[in-house]
Amino acid sequence: MSSATASHLVAVVMAGGSGTRFWPVSRKARPKQLLPLIDGATLLGATMERIAPLCPPERSLVVTAERLAEATRAAVPQLPAANVLAEPTPRNTAPCLALAAIAALQLDPDAVVCLLPADHHVADGAAFRAALQTAADAVQHGGIATLGVVPTHPETGYGYIEVGDERGDGTSSVVRFVEKPDLARAASFLAGGRHLWNAGIFVGRADTLLAAVDAELPALGETLAPLRDGRAGAFASASFVSALAQAFPSCPSISIDHGIMEHRDDLVVVPLSAGWSDVGSWRNVRDLGVDADGNYVDGDTFTLDCQDSVVVSDGPFVAAIGLRGIGVVARGDAVLVLPLDRSQDVRAVVSALAERGRDDLL
Amino acid sequence: MSSATASHLVAVVMAGGSGTRFWPVSRKARPKQLLPLIDGATLLGATMERIAPLCPPERSLVVTAERLAEATRAAVPQLPAANVLAEPTPRNTAPCLALAAIAALQLDPDAVVCLLPADHHVADGAAFRAALQTAADAVQHGGIATLGVVPTHPETGYGYIEVGDERGDGTSSVVRFVEKPDLARAASFLAGGRHLWNAGIFVGRADTLLAAVDAELPALGETLAPLRDGRAGAFASASFVSALAQAFPSCPSISIDHGIMEHRDDLVVVPLSAGWSDVGSWRNVRDLGVDADGNYVDGDTFTLDCQDSVVVSDGPFVAAIGLRGIGVVARGDAVLVLPLDRSQDVRAVVSALAERGRDDLL
Repeated sequence: MSSATASHLVAVVMAGGSGTRFWPVSRKARPKQLLPLIDGATLLGATMERIAPLCPPERSLVVTAERLAEATRAAVPQLPAANVLAEPTPRNTAPCLALAAIAALQLDPDAVVCLLPADHHVADGAAFRAALQTAADAVQHGGIATLGVVPTHPETGYGYIEVGDERGDGTSSVVRFVEKPDLARAASFLAGGRHLWNAGIFVGRADTLLAAVDAELPALGETLAPLRDGRAGAFASASFVSALAQAFPSCPSISIDHGIMEHRDDLVVVPLSAGWSDVGSWRNVRDLGVDADGNYVDGDTFTLDCQDSVVVSDGPFVAAIGLRGIGVVARGDAVLVLPLDRSQDVRAVVSALAERGRDDLL
Repeated sequence: MSSATASHLVAVVMAGGSGTRFWPVSRKARPKQLLPLIDGATLLGATMERIAPLCPPERSLVVTAERLAEATRAAVPQLPAANVLAEPTPRNTAPCLALAAIAALQLDPDAVVCLLPADHHVADGAAFRAALQTAADAVQHGGIATLGVVPTHPETGYGYIEVGDERGDGTSSVVRFVEKPDLARAASFLAGGRHLWNAGIFVGRADTLLAAVDAELPALGETLAPLRDGRAGAFASASFVSALAQAFPSCPSISIDHGIMEHRDDLVVVPLSAGWSDVGSWRNVRDLGVDADGNYVDGDTFTLDCQDSVVVSDGPFVAAIGLRGIGVVARGDAVLVLPLDRSQDVRAVVSALAERGRDDLL
């Protein structure tokens, strides 16, 4: 890549998720991105480590929820505290992109923003960075790039991106975004070779991104205007935080995909083959770190004749015998047991706890 | 029954078991019979309640291990403390029978002993007592009676008793004891109607039982002789306890069945249909108390779409989703998860813990 592009990169990590799907490990005050789910590091910390060779901490931003700001700063001590931006209220991802672009422009008027979810796992960091570099190079004079993960199985839990012609710079045009398919359709996508998983990773110049916001979501652009003209001061200043607190709740709550990217004709995609996972459920955790029997085991445990199972504890000793495809997750105050192919039903537990007023467990 | 027999009854409850199969609920210091496994009462307490209408506490004895004596007395506060006899060392059940008979003779020279395991569950207490009465009446002038449970399914986990001719007093002769059969054989037993489950419950005059000990296990009779002739004093006295401590370790370690009953030709059997279970494993627990979905659920739990499963906790909140035939047992310091048809493998956990020196969990 051109060194010019490299020196203008600003990583923006979106770390506001609530992580209901990892209860009982994830809690309101300790969502997925702050959990050491894989190999002992938090997903957020691993994300920062992954991007660090491309983008040093002082040029990296993390956007999170206000109530998580302190825990987030503690999780990435290498980052200047000011570089953790707190959203006063949840407004989905499009306002996050706009806020990030505004802050990145303050760091560098030629900033090229890499917008990364905080809670993904990537086995091959070098391949991931290479794809980001390709994307950054492609958009240094305009346009927006996204990374599309080359599918390894007919996944029904992800959205897809239909890929058009190659453009000769490592990117291809984007034909359309496709919602989560059923299994038959996912299988045809896999066989056809023209669909990639939408990983929610976007790269573009900060000014390009803000122009896209203004074009596709003018209400959002206008709402955040007081933060853009410099009058509110630097993004870490009290005046900026105050202006943000006033403006942000009025932002439309909409995702980057639906609000912006699905409407763009300047979007290109870079294929990514780097052992990517969104770590969306306990089932994914098993797939990421398996022993010879296909299990993911961690903590004070004893397993006998288990297969394709997750057995983890940071609290009580857990003994598991004869399990097949079962997840057992133990904390000092709560234990979850379920077949891993029903991992999405964890939400039912969280809902039930909320209904029962069991805030102690949420 | 004759009131003469009733007034001479002495209940002897054998409560020395270690209960490895109920880990993590059962521990060395809290074995199965001291657990509130069913309906909130300990199995020992439920056994005492069951026999009480036939035999008041002052005519009931409990034989347990020395290290469990205190906890046992606490579990049956209605019993005089002296009536809990402590075996100085484990010597299987035949020495327990001999010791019990010796103590019963001190209570009543015409004592008719009902020897009962402490850790069984009986749904119909009245039917159980009626069977005991029939047995006691049949042996008031000699002979020994056992209760044989009418099989309800082809159980491979119990020994069987082959039944001979009816004797006209509610008892039948015993043809032979049969070791635990395989499934085909168990099915033929069930179909044939001539086999009962050996429940390990025996009734006989104390002097008859001691005579049987002398005849079948003369070494046992001789070893305990110092306790029989009165010179050691009453069974609760310091001199008796001291003599017991000296003699008991020299007793042969053998079961009542193998050491005595299998060799007797004066044994009769009373059929028992009273919803009996030996509560041998978590699987049995499920069978004893099931909800509409076939589950046994107890404690701070949430279950969704579970069937034929056990979900119990006295510690952490347990959420179970989509389980089929799975047992989840949670304590504050340990959690067990396994298919209920592998309940016997709990022993592997206990062995592994012992190997690892995890006395904190044993």
